[in-house]
Amino acid sequence: MRAVTYQGVRRVSVEEVPKPVLQSSTDAIVRVTLSAVCGSDLHVFHGRIRGMEPGDIVGHEYVGTVEQLGDDVKVMTPGSRVLGSFFTACGHCWACRRGFFTQCIHSQLFGFGSRFGNLSGAQAQWVRVPYADQTLRTLPDSITDEQGILIEDILSTAYFATQRANIIAGDTVAVIGAGPVGLLAIQTAYVFGASLVFALDLVPQRLEQAQQIGAQPVLVNGKEVAAIHDLTDGRGADVVIEAVGSGASLDLASRVARPFATVSAAGVFTESSLPLPMGRVFAKDLTLRSGMANVLSAFEPVMALVKNGRLKPEMVISHRMPLEASEEAYRIFDRREAMKIILLAE
Amino acid sequence: MRAVTYQGVRRVSVEEVPKPVLQSSTDAIVRVTLSAVCGSDLHVFHGRIRGMEPGDIVGHEYVGTVEQLGDDVKVMTPGSRVLGSFFTACGHCWACRRGFFTQCIHSQLFGFGSRFGNLSGAQAQWVRVPYADQTLRTLPDSITDEQGILIEDILSTAYFATQRANIIAGDTVAVIGAGPVGLLAIQTAYVFGASLVFALDLVPQRLEQAQQIGAQPVLVNGKEVAAIHDLTDGRGADVVIEAVGSGASLDLASRVARPFATVSAAGVFTESSLPLPMGRVFAKDLTLRSGMANVLSAFEPVMALVKNGRLKPEMVISHRMPLEASEEAYRIFDRREAMKIILLAE
Amino acid sequence: MRAVTYQGVRRVSVEEVPKPVLQSSTDAIVRVTLSAVCGSDLHVFHGRIRGMEPGDIVGHEYVGTVEQLGDDVKVMTPGSRVLGSFFTACGHCWACRRGFFTQCIHSQLFGFGSRFGNLSGAQAQWVRVPYADQTLRTLPDSITDEQGILIEDILSTAYFATQRANIIAGDTVAVIGAGPVGLLAIQTAYVFGASLVFALDLVPQRLEQAQQIGAQPVLVNGKEVAAIHDLTDGRGADVVIEAVGSGASLDLASRVARPFATVSAAGVFTESSLPLPMGRVFAKDLTLRSGMANVLSAFEPVMALVKNGRLKPEMVISHRMPLEASEEAYRIFDRREAMKIILLAE
Amino acid sequence: MRAVTYQGVRRVSVEEVPKPVLQSSTDAIVRVTLSAVCGSDLHVFHGRIRGMEPGDIVGHEYVGTVEQLGDDVKVMTPGSRVLGSFFTACGHCWACRRGFFTQCIHSQLFGFGSRFGNLSGAQAQWVRVPYADQTLRTLPDSITDEQGILIEDILSTAYFATQRANIIAGDTVAVIGAGPVGLLAIQTAYVFGASLVFALDLVPQRLEQAQQIGAQPVLVNGKEVAAIHDLTDGRGADVVIEAVGSGASLDLASRVARPFATVSAAGVFTESSLPLPMGRVFAKDLTLRSGMANVLSAFEPVMALVKNGRLKPEMVISHRMPLEASEEAYRIFDRREAMKIILLAE
Repeated sequence: MRAVTYQGVRRVSVEEVPKPVLQSSTDAIVRVTLSAVCGSDLHVFHGRIRGMEPGDIVGHEYVGTVEQLGDDVKVMTPGSRVLGSFFTACGHCWACRRGFFTQCIHSQLFGFGSRFGNLSGAQAQWVRVPYADQTLRTLPDSITDEQGILIEDILSTAYFATQRANIIAGDTVAVIGAGPVGLLAIQTAYVFGASLVFALDLVPQRLEQAQQIGAQPVLVNGKEVAAIHDLTDGRGADVVIEAVGSGASLDLASRVARPFATVSAAGVFTESSLPLPMGRVFAKDLTLRSGMANVLSAFEPVMALVKNGRLKPEMVISHRMPLEASEEAYRIFDRREAMKIILLAE
Repeated sequence: MRAVTYQGVRRVSVEEVPKPVLQSSTDAIVRVTLSAVCGSDLHVFHGRIRGMEPGDIVGHEYVGTVEQLGDDVKVMTPGSRVLGSFFTACGHCWACRRGFFTQCIHSQLFGFGSRFGNLSGAQAQWVRVPYADQTLRTLPDSITDEQGILIEDILSTAYFATQRANIIAGDTVAVIGAGPVGLLAIQTAYVFGASLVFALDLVPQRLEQAQQIGAQPVLVNGKEVAAIHDLTDGRGADVVIEAVGSGASLDLASRVARPFATVSAAGVFTESSLPLPMGRVFAKDLTLRSGMANVLSAFEPVMALVKNGRLKPEMVISHRMPLEASEEAYRIFDRREAMKIILLAE
Repeated sequence: MRAVTYQGVRRVSVEEVPKPVLQSSTDAIVRVTLSAVCGSDLHVFHGRIRGMEPGDIVGHEYVGTVEQLGDDVKVMTPGSRVLGSFFTACGHCWACRRGFFTQCIHSQLFGFGSRFGNLSGAQAQWVRVPYADQTLRTLPDSITDEQGILIEDILSTAYFATQRANIIAGDTVAVIGAGPVGLLAIQTAYVFGASLVFALDLVPQRLEQAQQIGAQPVLVNGKEVAAIHDLTDGRGADVVIEAVGSGASLDLASRVARPFATVSAAGVFTESSLPLPMGRVFAKDLTLRSGMANVLSAFEPVMALVKNGRLKPEMVISHRMPLEASEEAYRIFDRREAMKIILLAE
Repeated sequence: MRAVTYQGVRRVSVEEVPKPVLQSSTDAIVRVTLSAVCGSDLHVFHGRIRGMEPGDIVGHEYVGTVEQLGDDVKVMTPGSRVLGSFFTACGHCWACRRGFFTQCIHSQLFGFGSRFGNLSGAQAQWVRVPYADQTLRTLPDSITDEQGILIEDILSTAYFATQRANIIAGDTVAVIGAGPVGLLAIQTAYVFGASLVFALDLVPQRLEQAQQIGAQPVLVNGKEVAAIHDLTDGRGADVVIEAVGSGASLDLASRVARPFATVSAAGVFTESSLPLPMGRVFAKDLTLRSGMANVLSAFEPVMALVKNGRLKPEMVISHRMPLEASEEAYRIFDRREAMKIILLAE
């Protein structure tokens, strides 16, 4: 089959590789319809993921059709349209029993190499999915493939971070970063009850897109903290959702937050140490939450919201390209010329 | 001044009465711009409120302009546009300190006679408001008088009941009753994150109005429980908001609720005893909440939501009439020919 | 094997019956060490459970040793000491995924006849346990069999009702009824942070036992509401746990509760309709919760609390009798001459 | 009157200063019975608080008797025994209305100089207390002065941090640091439902004291993370309370926390920037909370718990000294030779 493979720093290529086969009675083989390039794939692309070897298949966002199932898979049947989580979960360990699926003691990540469970990626024609009953969800007809692939990771990431932000209906919400996750967090913040969402970004074009979906744009130009205070009677935003994943962004989050706010980070942090403004966190009685998005716990509500038209994630898709054009896809995504790229398996 | 007065069972009349004066240093005298007739005024109209004497002024929904203030009022000034709660709160007792304003140990209700604190009603040209700093809120220019009078009671009642319903974003919500509070509860349920709201009512016309604001209509015709189960994969609604105030309505709520649901009642219950399906509440692990709406805790978020266009309460207003036409207003409201009647002070 | 069987209204007898065998790959056969008589067994004894036929084995509280396992059971091995839930849960349906195990769509109750899943009871030498990985839990050495059998149902019932009561550390808690569940609810209320627990009962001897574990006794003699108000600066108890299961008890709960309190019922309600004081529930802004105890969600924390000595459930055991003496056990339990009876399998 | 005054880096002296007088109608003059030296007073002692000038009175922990009251103080009378918060709160601003008293827009700190509101300290014979109705609480006879002065700051600080840690009854809790706040956090963790509390400290003597109140001691010697994992089946502690106030302590907290834990910091952080392990916070889905302790919201429950014997804070008092010996008191406290020092006004 054809698959996107890692070939070294800033190099991927589409190669012919063996089609995956069932390895366990709880596995599924999924024929991939769409895959997508995610910001976290750039960590691989930049060579920052130890254990990722040349030739390894990349990618973790996918929708498709079940082709083959192990004997112990019960919830789905061959032919089922499915979306899948970017990580696997066993469903039986203490973490899974409590619903902490990202922390499953048997968890593997798709396309992140040997240090994350050595599971082949999903930017390919087929993908093997362990613990299929837990890792996959059947897609209803009323949800399109493109909606499904966004539900599968970044929309559920936005939902997860927003849920952890503890919005009380009527609150103002500041979203730091108007990239794909940030735009979807604007949508989820409104669904959770925001009266007004402020979008903060350095790039005016991103703010335009944020404004189109109802956010109040605030350009990050050195006056953004004053701007938020002016817009909130001097208090700061009731809730902050960080959607960048940097220390500077967390620092800004702590500045625009009102006292006793929650700052919920949707961004990915890989630094073992990062300077943070603890004096301000203390003085303002803040709560800071970060985490790998527990998308498996979000799939059901997010699918209900998309199905009923309350979330419209497709708006973040900027490019649709064939799988064979993946090298070009990674290049333009790395140059930040694309918001979100969908790869068509054929 | 002119005021609507209770004159006996099913009789009100507009009379000339003395204009109120300040009685305490924390009082305000408010010149009423708009008042409104509320479903709970019908309890007075029907003669069911003991302690309500002929000649007593009725009404508890009002917006207006501050005319005079006691020396200890700090938050507002003469000329301030204000809305007010239907009950007063001292701000200092143990209940107020915990935010349980409806349970203030000094609480009085406007227009419910001597058993509820003997405070004159607000369907009048002027009204005296005790504990003005707590009981009144300044209206921003961006909120109209008509929005204000709905915020003041029934929209905040809907918000309070919805907040107590513990919606998780993505939940389905059944609203029992599509009267004015029910219609506003449909709006607040969406603001709190409902993926889909079911409106249940006996009257097709009310369901049409519910449908116009996005609810899925379900006629109460003996098949409504089956209908809800069909719409929810056999589970029942994740959350139920009761907006009628009867035993039959609570019984229906317990039937359409999924297991482990919360049934939050926005309706008014005055019966000392009511038959309830405790066996079903037990077997389904339900939570039942009821209460006098703590609107003072809801004013700030509700005003933010109205100001930003997320709640549009005006749609429930069916009639605008002069204060002098109040006799007619009560008659048509009692015959259920009006959804919501606003009374113009002049 | 020997087992306690239902023989008609107020008649049980110990009979020789076939030993159970594995019926599914997820079953376990457990050799019962201890079983116990529960208040809800009296519903069977009194002939009030439709579908319970003469000859059916009764009982649902048990600890024992795993003797045989179906091929798909993973968590335990033959020889494991186990306690089990009084109901089964599949672990895969929508209810189980959300942790609503009592509402599992495949749930069966042990010893309640054909209307509750037709599953043989546990007052026997062996019992077949469906979905063993979900329904059973391995007992650590540090927990005795007698602790285990109390954890298995009534202590976890007390924990579940207390958890749903939303105690804030420092609250006063009133427990209505000082029977076995009530006594354990006094313990769990302290574990959840009560500053002081009031025990209400009609029987002075039960109040003595309550007092020995730190409760303030309040005799139900017509002056109990005034007594609670005197003890709480006139407010009422911050939280109420009902541990009787009657309409009178819920009525008393609503009287001793302070405004905005939660009344959490641990008792069993089987009545299709019961008169409740809705006017008071409304006027006091109360929350009422009832439900079949979701003990499967409570086993882990309750075992941790027993293991570390924070809960001491053994104090409720009044009688230890051989299984062969079950007829006598039911008689004295039905006459309320026993607090809690443990049956020794041999 | 006599008062402890700041005289420069590492120098305090007891001086004769003017007795304070009422400045506002909401002030109280309190005759101080006991004051105490707090860890945060060492920030002053070390000269790290800008705006603290030689001659300024230090100290913020106090109990006493009301001597004189402004006309608008309603809740107390001259002669009332009172404890007071270390900060003042107006009760009327948006922050106070939401219960965020530490963030009152008019807040002043006692004894921290001009940058924190320029309010004289409480290590003196008398202290002026602004907004007395909010800032002070009447002490019941059943609470001693020594209990009161611990309730007033460090016990309520422990309660506040523990409440924000979201313990579920049965959880294991790790407390980092067994100083006075840490020891009290062990007590509050048990009150909130911990099944077992681990105390971590570098100093064996402190761990002995922790063990005496029921904690499992864990020496911080490089093996503490492994020790916690051994004690928790490899998971880590369900909840972590940090009671030191350093970056190293937060780092350790993140290591001993299980995935999806809350780390609630009771310590004081003044650093504008501190290196934190964000990669681990992300990978483990942690929540981090820090803040100036909102003791005013904790006084009522904490007093109820002390009154009923569920919290016994006196055990942290190591020294009782006359106010005149304050120079010596600061010296030994700074050398960490004292756990908690009480100063007797006469």
